[in-house]
Amino acid sequence: MLPLNPALASTFRPPVMEARRWLEGVSFPPERPLINVSQAAPVEPPPEGLRRAIAEAALTRPEAHLYGPVLGNPDLRAAVAAEWSRAYGGTLSPDHVAITQGCNQAFCAAIATVAGQGDEVIIPVPWYFNHKMWLEMQGVKAVPLSCGPGMVPEAEAAARLISARTKALVLVSPNNPSGAEYPAETLRDFYALAQKHGLALIVDETYRDFDSRDGAPHDLFADPDWGDTLIQLYSFSKAYRLTGHRVGALIASPARMIEVEKFLDTVAISTGQLGQIGALWGMTHLRDWLAGERAEVIARRDAMRAGMEALPGWTVKGCGAYFAWVEHPFAISSAELAKRLVREAGVLLLPGTMFMPETDPAAPRHLRIAFANVDQARIQELMTRLRTFQA
Amino acid sequence: MLPLNPALASTFRPPVMEARRWLEGVSFPPERPLINVSQAAPVEPPPEGLRRAIAEAALTRPEAHLYGPVLGNPDLRAAVAAEWSRAYGGTLSPDHVAITQGCNQAFCAAIATVAGQGDEVIIPVPWYFNHKMWLEMQGVKAVPLSCGPGMVPEAEAAARLISARTKALVLVSPNNPSGAEYPAETLRDFYALAQKHGLALIVDETYRDFDSRDGAPHDLFADPDWGDTLIQLYSFSKAYRLTGHRVGALIASPARMIEVEKFLDTVAISTGQLGQIGALWGMTHLRDWLAGERAEVIARRDAMRAGMEALPGWTVKGCGAYFAWVEHPFAISSAELAKRLVREAGVLLLPGTMFMPETDPAAPRHLRIAFANVDQARIQELMTRLRTFQA
Repeated sequence: MLPLNPALASTFRPPVMEARRWLEGVSFPPERPLINVSQAAPVEPPPEGLRRAIAEAALTRPEAHLYGPVLGNPDLRAAVAAEWSRAYGGTLSPDHVAITQGCNQAFCAAIATVAGQGDEVIIPVPWYFNHKMWLEMQGVKAVPLSCGPGMVPEAEAAARLISARTKALVLVSPNNPSGAEYPAETLRDFYALAQKHGLALIVDETYRDFDSRDGAPHDLFADPDWGDTLIQLYSFSKAYRLTGHRVGALIASPARMIEVEKFLDTVAISTGQLGQIGALWGMTHLRDWLAGERAEVIARRDAMRAGMEALPGWTVKGCGAYFAWVEHPFAISSAELAKRLVREAGVLLLPGTMFMPETDPAAPRHLRIAFANVDQARIQELMTRLRTFQA
Repeated sequence: MLPLNPALASTFRPPVMEARRWLEGVSFPPERPLINVSQAAPVEPPPEGLRRAIAEAALTRPEAHLYGPVLGNPDLRAAVAAEWSRAYGGTLSPDHVAITQGCNQAFCAAIATVAGQGDEVIIPVPWYFNHKMWLEMQGVKAVPLSCGPGMVPEAEAAARLISARTKALVLVSPNNPSGAEYPAETLRDFYALAQKHGLALIVDETYRDFDSRDGAPHDLFADPDWGDTLIQLYSFSKAYRLTGHRVGALIASPARMIEVEKFLDTVAISTGQLGQIGALWGMTHLRDWLAGERAEVIARRDAMRAGMEALPGWTVKGCGAYFAWVEHPFAISSAELAKRLVREAGVLLLPGTMFMPETDPAAPRHLRIAFANVDQARIQELMTRLRTFQA
């Protein structure tokens, strides 16, 4: 096949789709159905009220089928600005908010505004694979930053990786894949480091609604100059079960929005209207429901941690929001283990090799478990299957 | 603001959004309402049956709210493959089809698979501005190709622009912004040229449903080896009035789909489900309705051409599908003329300067009129306003 962009060709294939291919030809008996903890994706549709709001808009609002503004619908942008001002103790206005076709696209847009071919971006390992993929296909070097205790990265260590080509530091908190909830001080340290070197600090808070801590996870928006440094990313997909609608957000300064708008116009034109309508309805009506969802995810996290800690030979390295990052006790690589767990235990999860450089010795030893998708009974069943598995 | 990617900073701002800003602070009296011919966008929602199909899916199909496969829903991919096989006289299978978040994204994905930083892509001028923007922000040089008679580009002229860095030829037919419907021979010539030099031929057929010619617009899919050379792009937005849902398609070889999947996973994860459901419903149920739409657009084209040809001093350079590309008789630049037409004639259209290099002498002389959005009475009214305008 001619021609082929080498930067894309050398990018690895989508891990979640690769994992789905492991299911092909494998049957799961009724007494041992598949436990799918591979993707951070709700398995139930949104609450009926939200579904009805979307259906009603489809029937009665002509503009729900037509192009909207590139940066998103004004009502949703205003709702995000108001909620963020309340939640983070800052003063955000609608022109600080862009709505994107999902949070992956928000990350792509954020990077596009700060870094080009040959530049460098520092990202903690394990990383979220789509972040790594975007950097790779854009010719931006992902500089890996090892985490400290509790899977929390340290600004001091990041400082040692900064070069003349460094443009941004990326943090994901609560983290995908480790589940770590970064302390506010960590975010402040990275923010100060970015300020000092004129870098962007990109903070992906896709899982913020499931953070187990009460109150704001950081105070960066309280700095009146936050827009010079901070770019924050968010997803409506997890909170309101809207993964099939592709709605995310990017929070940045109005100056940076001029650049974001160029990117989104070119790649997206605008974000789907029904998804935006659903997201706004969710923000307006589902606060209590979401609080219940969060409580359930936290309960699952506790079950997950307790269950894993009772498994001989396994070690929990991180556990929070949607994910557990665990070290397995077997003498085989995580890549082989993950495939064998499908066939021999009816469990689909992702190996550590999908989240870090191949050369990292931690890669074959770790697994990511997206536990938030399964209820506590299934978490117990998962533990039973892992306990009885023989490598 | 620090840091800033120079490739994005040097990309121009979205023309449609810039044009919308010209409306700010301008009032349009009831006796002379705005005639908006700036964007290729239906102004009416889709037919009620389609709206109801979307609403019903939102209420009754849980999967309509959840992630789908990266390359699109199997049923929609199969429907496109079947319809394309029929329409183009080739044999396409579902694995030749990717569903994208709109056709802009299909173009971004196509380019990402063939060209990287420092490569060159040949595009006819005037170009579709979002194509130019994506090439610019990716560091790919857009090599402009002047059109021949009837705004049709010539492969012979393109051949003279090919360098060692050339990776692809891009054609848009029916064309945006010129409205030209490229002859099948033109496409065959470009295809042969691409084959000869090992280039990709990217053909954007967003406006194929409004082509005034009957039958297939080209026979490229009849070549069993088309997948080695051809990448075709399509949009469901115009045919079924789904601009607010963001659904497009990319047709390519299964080998190239591996690369497309990487790009889409990273930028999109998947395309919105309700939009895909709507697109499939449209393909299945709206064939006759779409035939009527096409007939109406062709009638508008005829009214447009006749009206323009009767305007003293104006010249129609191209007219078809959604667009007319016209030369104006005034001594001012198209950029200034477009702004003045808003205030003085209540007409919003885009100047030629948005569709070609600033240095091109044709840029200040031309205008794009997206006439398909307005009915024939409004086209007559547009002619009256242009006739009485005094520069």
